[in-house]
Amino acid sequence: MVLMRTHIGQVLRGARISQKRTLREVAKAARVSLGYLSEVERGQKEASSELLNSICLALNLSLSNVISSVAHQIYLEEAPQLTVVDTNAA
Amino acid sequence: MVLMRTHIGQVLRGARISQKRTLREVAKAARVSLGYLSEVERGQKEASSELLNSICLALNLSLSNVISSVAHQIYLEEAPQLTVVDTNAA
Repeated sequence: MVLMRTHIGQVLRGARISQKRTLREVAKAARVSLGYLSEVERGQKEASSELLNSICLALNLSLSNVISSVAHQIYLEEAPQLTVVDTNAA
Repeated sequence: MVLMRTHIGQVLRGARISQKRTLREVAKAARVSLGYLSEVERGQKEASSELLNSICLALNLSLSNVISSVAHQIYLEEAPQLTVVDTNAA
């Protein structure tokens, strides 16, 4: 099942890693606990809208950019899988 | 403050209204309570990822389309306000 929180977590984690920042640094900047941020990144917890804003701010990302990336990732996961058709099959 | 849940609610409500369906019909199709759907639509409750999927399915919308619309609405709200400059002011 395609879950929004999975993709939000992946986008936030990707941004943090590309900025070479630790969970501890970003959690402190966002004023959330390290455990909370870790669970959000792993898609195990739904981020509240307020804390999502705090995390985006800590990562210097606009919320619209993050949500736009999430929409794109979901779109790719929703897209029908390519089916390999074996034309030699009886 | 720009809040994701506000925009998710607006997009879902807009889709339901454009389909001329009642809260009761969509809540039943999505297997959520009428009160829950109403709160989500008014941006008063964060929809869990699972129930957001159910509501999208009930509205015959893809999750990626909904989230893409949400991203666009947030972008518009984030955009700097136009400032009217009074060039006649002293």
